[in-house]
Amino acid sequence: MILARCARRVPYGAAAVVSTSCALADEGPTFSVEKVDLKRVTHLQTLGFRSKGGSNAKSFGYAKFISDDDCVLGDVLLKAHAGPREVTGYMRAGPRSELHFDPKETRAAIVTCGGLCPGLNSIVKNLVTILEGHYGIQKIYGVSGGYRGFTSVGWDAPVELSSDYCERIHHDGGTVLGTSRGGFDAEKIVEWLKAKHVSQLFVVGGDGTHRGAYKLAELCVARGLNVSVAGIPKTIDNDIGIIDRSFGFMTAVSEATRAIAAARTEAECNMPNGIGVVKLMGRSAGFLAAYATLASQDVDLCLVPEVPIVMEGPQGVLPHLERVIDRKGHAVVVVAEGAGEELLGASAEVDAGGNKKLPAIGEWLVAEIKKHFKASGKEATLKYIDPSYMVRSVAADAGDSYLCMLLAHAAAHGSMAGYTGFTVGLVNNRTVMIPIPELARTSPRSMNATGRTWERVLSITSQPGIALARKKTKAGSPVDEAP
Amino acid sequence: MILARCARRVPYGAAAVVSTSCALADEGPTFSVEKVDLKRVTHLQTLGFRSKGGSNAKSFGYAKFISDDDCVLGDVLLKAHAGPREVTGYMRAGPRSELHFDPKETRAAIVTCGGLCPGLNSIVKNLVTILEGHYGIQKIYGVSGGYRGFTSVGWDAPVELSSDYCERIHHDGGTVLGTSRGGFDAEKIVEWLKAKHVSQLFVVGGDGTHRGAYKLAELCVARGLNVSVAGIPKTIDNDIGIIDRSFGFMTAVSEATRAIAAARTEAECNMPNGIGVVKLMGRSAGFLAAYATLASQDVDLCLVPEVPIVMEGPQGVLPHLERVIDRKGHAVVVVAEGAGEELLGASAEVDAGGNKKLPAIGEWLVAEIKKHFKASGKEATLKYIDPSYMVRSVAADAGDSYLCMLLAHAAAHGSMAGYTGFTVGLVNNRTVMIPIPELARTSPRSMNATGRTWERVLSITSQPGIALARKKTKAGSPVDEAP
Amino acid sequence: MILARCARRVPYGAAAVVSTSCALADEGPTFSVEKVDLKRVTHLQTLGFRSKGGSNAKSFGYAKFISDDDCVLGDVLLKAHAGPREVTGYMRAGPRSELHFDPKETRAAIVTCGGLCPGLNSIVKNLVTILEGHYGIQKIYGVSGGYRGFTSVGWDAPVELSSDYCERIHHDGGTVLGTSRGGFDAEKIVEWLKAKHVSQLFVVGGDGTHRGAYKLAELCVARGLNVSVAGIPKTIDNDIGIIDRSFGFMTAVSEATRAIAAARTEAECNMPNGIGVVKLMGRSAGFLAAYATLASQDVDLCLVPEVPIVMEGPQGVLPHLERVIDRKGHAVVVVAEGAGEELLGASAEVDAGGNKKLPAIGEWLVAEIKKHFKASGKEATLKYIDPSYMVRSVAADAGDSYLCMLLAHAAAHGSMAGYTGFTVGLVNNRTVMIPIPELARTSPRSMNATGRTWERVLSITSQPGIALARKKTKAGSPVDEAP
Amino acid sequence: MILARCARRVPYGAAAVVSTSCALADEGPTFSVEKVDLKRVTHLQTLGFRSKGGSNAKSFGYAKFISDDDCVLGDVLLKAHAGPREVTGYMRAGPRSELHFDPKETRAAIVTCGGLCPGLNSIVKNLVTILEGHYGIQKIYGVSGGYRGFTSVGWDAPVELSSDYCERIHHDGGTVLGTSRGGFDAEKIVEWLKAKHVSQLFVVGGDGTHRGAYKLAELCVARGLNVSVAGIPKTIDNDIGIIDRSFGFMTAVSEATRAIAAARTEAECNMPNGIGVVKLMGRSAGFLAAYATLASQDVDLCLVPEVPIVMEGPQGVLPHLERVIDRKGHAVVVVAEGAGEELLGASAEVDAGGNKKLPAIGEWLVAEIKKHFKASGKEATLKYIDPSYMVRSVAADAGDSYLCMLLAHAAAHGSMAGYTGFTVGLVNNRTVMIPIPELARTSPRSMNATGRTWERVLSITSQPGIALARKKTKAGSPVDEAP
Repeated sequence: MILARCARRVPYGAAAVVSTSCALADEGPTFSVEKVDLKRVTHLQTLGFRSKGGSNAKSFGYAKFISDDDCVLGDVLLKAHAGPREVTGYMRAGPRSELHFDPKETRAAIVTCGGLCPGLNSIVKNLVTILEGHYGIQKIYGVSGGYRGFTSVGWDAPVELSSDYCERIHHDGGTVLGTSRGGFDAEKIVEWLKAKHVSQLFVVGGDGTHRGAYKLAELCVARGLNVSVAGIPKTIDNDIGIIDRSFGFMTAVSEATRAIAAARTEAECNMPNGIGVVKLMGRSAGFLAAYATLASQDVDLCLVPEVPIVMEGPQGVLPHLERVIDRKGHAVVVVAEGAGEELLGASAEVDAGGNKKLPAIGEWLVAEIKKHFKASGKEATLKYIDPSYMVRSVAADAGDSYLCMLLAHAAAHGSMAGYTGFTVGLVNNRTVMIPIPELARTSPRSMNATGRTWERVLSITSQPGIALARKKTKAGSPVDEAP
Repeated sequence: MILARCARRVPYGAAAVVSTSCALADEGPTFSVEKVDLKRVTHLQTLGFRSKGGSNAKSFGYAKFISDDDCVLGDVLLKAHAGPREVTGYMRAGPRSELHFDPKETRAAIVTCGGLCPGLNSIVKNLVTILEGHYGIQKIYGVSGGYRGFTSVGWDAPVELSSDYCERIHHDGGTVLGTSRGGFDAEKIVEWLKAKHVSQLFVVGGDGTHRGAYKLAELCVARGLNVSVAGIPKTIDNDIGIIDRSFGFMTAVSEATRAIAAARTEAECNMPNGIGVVKLMGRSAGFLAAYATLASQDVDLCLVPEVPIVMEGPQGVLPHLERVIDRKGHAVVVVAEGAGEELLGASAEVDAGGNKKLPAIGEWLVAEIKKHFKASGKEATLKYIDPSYMVRSVAADAGDSYLCMLLAHAAAHGSMAGYTGFTVGLVNNRTVMIPIPELARTSPRSMNATGRTWERVLSITSQPGIALARKKTKAGSPVDEAP
Repeated sequence: MILARCARRVPYGAAAVVSTSCALADEGPTFSVEKVDLKRVTHLQTLGFRSKGGSNAKSFGYAKFISDDDCVLGDVLLKAHAGPREVTGYMRAGPRSELHFDPKETRAAIVTCGGLCPGLNSIVKNLVTILEGHYGIQKIYGVSGGYRGFTSVGWDAPVELSSDYCERIHHDGGTVLGTSRGGFDAEKIVEWLKAKHVSQLFVVGGDGTHRGAYKLAELCVARGLNVSVAGIPKTIDNDIGIIDRSFGFMTAVSEATRAIAAARTEAECNMPNGIGVVKLMGRSAGFLAAYATLASQDVDLCLVPEVPIVMEGPQGVLPHLERVIDRKGHAVVVVAEGAGEELLGASAEVDAGGNKKLPAIGEWLVAEIKKHFKASGKEATLKYIDPSYMVRSVAADAGDSYLCMLLAHAAAHGSMAGYTGFTVGLVNNRTVMIPIPELARTSPRSMNATGRTWERVLSITSQPGIALARKKTKAGSPVDEAP
Repeated sequence: MILARCARRVPYGAAAVVSTSCALADEGPTFSVEKVDLKRVTHLQTLGFRSKGGSNAKSFGYAKFISDDDCVLGDVLLKAHAGPREVTGYMRAGPRSELHFDPKETRAAIVTCGGLCPGLNSIVKNLVTILEGHYGIQKIYGVSGGYRGFTSVGWDAPVELSSDYCERIHHDGGTVLGTSRGGFDAEKIVEWLKAKHVSQLFVVGGDGTHRGAYKLAELCVARGLNVSVAGIPKTIDNDIGIIDRSFGFMTAVSEATRAIAAARTEAECNMPNGIGVVKLMGRSAGFLAAYATLASQDVDLCLVPEVPIVMEGPQGVLPHLERVIDRKGHAVVVVAEGAGEELLGASAEVDAGGNKKLPAIGEWLVAEIKKHFKASGKEATLKYIDPSYMVRSVAADAGDSYLCMLLAHAAAHGSMAGYTGFTVGLVNNRTVMIPIPELARTSPRSMNATGRTWERVLSITSQPGIALARKKTKAGSPVDEAP
């Protein structure tokens, strides 16, 4: 195995003859990790609440338990010779040997908040089956319609969830619990938890929802309530920090590629010079647009909020489209709804959830392209597609269903073990528990305009890359280099 | 943020009052990595072949390059207090600053071997678009029908691949190149490479195919040929070691859940006591059966090669099915084709690819269940579904299309940079280059019968877990704990 | 409009110059229908049961009513000069001006029998919504698991169906009522109807089920029960006479084309000489195999029960496959499960539903093809796919959902109007009521081996047609010429 | 069989006892057809062009031929006692015993015009396979991008089509030929036909395209060109007269139900009072909206161009929505793009194809509903989905693929036999040839606002029906009562 023996590169100068051996003296670059900065999750016991669940071995024949001594490294990219290095670590999720809560006396509640996302029902089903079927919890409330379901007068009352109730819900999109935006009232929610003797609250939602969840966790402690609050991050935009990807995201990408396929077909077939434009969700993060571009391989131009749009000039969008049209006779454009704010101006208006109303980038872009081609004396046939909610209202695909199971189990194991104020996620392909403040600190994230995902987009679309140099500063921390 | 300050668990004894502060003296468990055992990939320069590609910056406006100083940690699960620890590392994949090959003078060839897998055409398309469109290679051969395509008389001659040729192939299942089993002849293949002036060979296939690819890499070196051989691991069974998952696997899981849905519908609706049995691929690894079970959430019994089948007794399959039927009125069973060898006996026969012919576990199981229910005086309505090749002949879904893009780019960047004898993969959600001998050493892998994936299956199906204790010894290294 | 004036063909002899006018003297062939043989459906009033439903106008603002004076022609193919001709007619389905039953006092029951078929839940939902929502019937029983659900001890009791209960059932395959084969006991069923005060029974099933339904209608009359029994024909094989097509059939064809697509991909990609063989349902009628062949356009050989299989010789299957392989390099074969009985011999065994057990034509065919190619010194790669229940367990597609709505409405309108012993169907694209004895007399039908559907199959597959001359005599009346 | 004997209804007065026999004297209503008004298609022989194709039996082993003596009845709904009646008839499509054209000397051309529609590629493929494979025509031109492809300078030149070229095109949406609107120039097209020695032209398009095709047929005759021009009707709106349904329509309905499912999920889950609004294609005919409503069974309000929109009052849209919301908590609305013109006013603008630009009914409706609920003090959560081109750019489903095969074969058989100026269609579930002027006279059609399809929509949605009385007069003949 000569190759294996020569796996280290030696600076050869200009060796003219082929060597069938190689020097092994030089050990090459070395790597090490001095210290792991473990992002610890709080346990109710440390706050003075006595554990009384007993041994977890009674609930299931576990092969082994996870403990606080198990850590998942958060930074897996190392540089050689970089000196002593501290990397982030997260507590590994999974069943603990001791239960904090006695299932027989425990009541749980589940609430889903914010916009829809593929997999919400999978999360609910998996939470119920592990809490009820695996751990034996007898009463699980499903809170109706987000945070408002705890408090709104005239709103549907919470339902009792069971494995039977959830038998087939995961095959449908949406959430059987309903959802809404806003309506967070920590005092009233904690009152409700107390009144219903609920000691485990599972909150599924975005970074705003998580901030609320953390307040609930703190308020429960302040009130002396032995309550675990666990989050499960939900975002159709994949803009939650730290985690590999959020559940439902790849399903949404998959649906988005259906719209792109339609746009490509329209562009290819409508002569002359068919141009299909697809608008996708993504207010401040272009992950959906970028991943749909990478997954579909049918896109010639991708516009995202993180990179300013340049219309004219040698690196402009319009000349690029002309070149594509000249070469192929048609073109496909994907634009995230939040792109082009620098051109259109941000609206001062906000919607009920506090989100800024976005300028109509899709329609604007179509009009500009039409104008440009008309001015340049070329006919162009524009077709505009906005799949909007169609990308998020479907059931989770197999990959996301699997991910939802991982996350629900991670949250349930952590909560039964007595942790609180945490959320769960897949980090470097392992399930971990993350302190909510860490998630809040790094969310919403946006795509790194000089990172590898965007570089791949540029490589595949061949669109001009100058904008790289003019990376906009966006809120949150741009995700690094994954994957 | 009281919770954050108290994130470390303190052994409380029996604190009766709730504390709103916590001691911070004890630092808790600490983690570190003493040394990274980097699995280096061989560079052609170390073997005496002079690089003459020049600067990679000319090909594309990269934001930054990856170098041999970039490492991806292979082990991300750490134990505290475990003493100085050495973990595995892999070379990060990605564009290098210097090219080994000059694109203008370089010819590449692509070959796909073994059984079909979703995403093969995505791999081919992405290889061609990055080699041709991004790097500017002018001639790329598509070898017809696997290794035999290099040598078979009367076989289709290799075609020349171009971006135009590959424009839409990724939307179809299968491989435009065709595939076959066997037919590996290192001498003839190297002759062909030499005759055609091909200096980059991309081989897509399983562990056997990779072993062949490594022989080719070695033989090229021995012959003084400046040729890079790169692999891309392909397996419908997800039984390749080291990597997070193989491309196409989740798509196959998704198709498998269609068969399971059919079986569930038949079981639910055909009275009395409907039982749907689905046989899935998986000769020696049950990942497909296990993941389809976890993704569909509709399965009551999952049988895999890694765990022996016990039919009778308190922990037996048949009494479990009776209990399920008594509770729900119907049951769904998933069985991997390689399960139950210990009951049926392995056939001595092998097929053309050297695979052992498998006993007909599906039909056997159906007959045994019928017999059992008849004997116990209960009617049962059995429905058997074998989707066979339907799970593998479809196009890659969005997630796998994205993965195929990552892998093809990783292989192309590595090959252009001058590495050889390597394969690529997603490890801890990062793309890496892996020396083929490492892949060969750890493949085929089987599922860990005491690992977390199987534990999740047991939790969800509620099937008896005693078999855990009787884990069969299988070839290869069982994958650990992912994810 | 010169063309329009010359629309009749005149025997021109050898007119050398182009005429821009044409003679109009000859009127050409003429067509007429002397008499329509209307297949009347029995009304309960003619049997002495007084109608007391009153005016239907109260239930809904109909634009117009259908009456016994409305007829749908059953034979729409006429021959000129054929002399006075009698054609079949059917009573048009639709709302009648007078109701026989008073919705307030009426109870209905629905039962689904036999094997699954796409659209069963659509039928149930549409029956419930029109009976409850449109007509105002208060109590509708859903009988569990076919005819046995009326009588079996220990079986699930009938459930009460409502629009709420049925809200989303139509999006799932199968039948929420469950189904079974056999178990027909007319006395007990009529007792049950009487005991539950049910005066409308809707029976969904095949020709055997319909024969039972007619016995129930007769027995009710004999017992003096004012009960309407209406059928809705269900068959996955499309082998019910008279009607254009049965609900769910095109959905099954659609699913079957998925299996064919998989077989084509395997055949195309597996070298050398890939041959994909797909077995489809169809015990005595090959409609599913034939329509899947016509819809997929990917099939090179289609074998059905109606046409004997000839393996060798100039018109044989095997030489045809060799020719296809020589031309294209691969081939796709579709075989109905009931084909080839003349070669394999019919089994004397019957299953619980009285269906003969079929010889394993698929496996046999694969073995014969392998043997043949081996003998002729050619390698061939055979891939066998049997989608079995996967083609029938899915939900109805849009076309079949629409058809199910038409049929359920037709049955409900007819039953509310007081007809009994009838079934419904689409005949020449119009909904009609058909006396059950007419349906029973013409069912099961098989495909006409000298008809146009088979001719189209032969044209598209290019398979040898000699077998046409050796049409087998099959039970039932072969469908004529549709469409 | 007592029921069968009593199938005719006798006016019973008040028979108190049940009769088990019945009088048979009265024969009941009788039906007959005095005369069939056959809509003849012109044969080139009648125009003085000599046939020289010889016997068709040489091309294929037909079981039987269709002749001018074969007629398909167009009116299959008869009224009893209606006196002597004349019904419409059409010439049955199918192979004729004599060919007008000698395949060896014949060249054909195919052109696709207007907007995309599922199945265009199936039409092209089936035309090519029957012309080339079945009849043996050697040269078939595929004209690029609609009528403009014959004449536009700088446009893609016509390609030569073959079975190989078309091997898999039918699995993709769109048309491989490309399409465009307008550009019809009869003189230039006939010049092209003459120059290329093309004697069969197949034109796929809407009623406007067909009017052009008829002009071409006439001009060819006037120029002494022995050319057959055959049409195949294409419309995504199903607004072509006479035929049962147009190809691709049910596929579009199927895709539309995906958007409706998304709207329903959003409406159900977004609290409080979720309302999903889906806009569908349909400028002047609401078939797509109506059929999608009937197929999805999830719609509470359907608005179409044929029925004026009433917003307020006891029969208004807004109070209806309030009632639905009060009962179910959510509502789903489908609106055709051409609905509400009477409220919004028709724009004077027209697009390149001469279509009037439509007012933005979808956005207007969403705004009105929001305003209404706000005014009435109820929160409502509106979600708007416009799938636009996504419903038409997909490949044909199995049912439409089958239909496309029927139509392509019908056109090819008719053209080979020497007919010209005709189009083809499914009428009463039989393939016929229709003189183009008949199609033009009855197209575009709109939905009958007092017909059965709309009545079914009203029954299922429970929306107010008063608008029935105010049926708008629309261009074209409203389709009658189908089915």
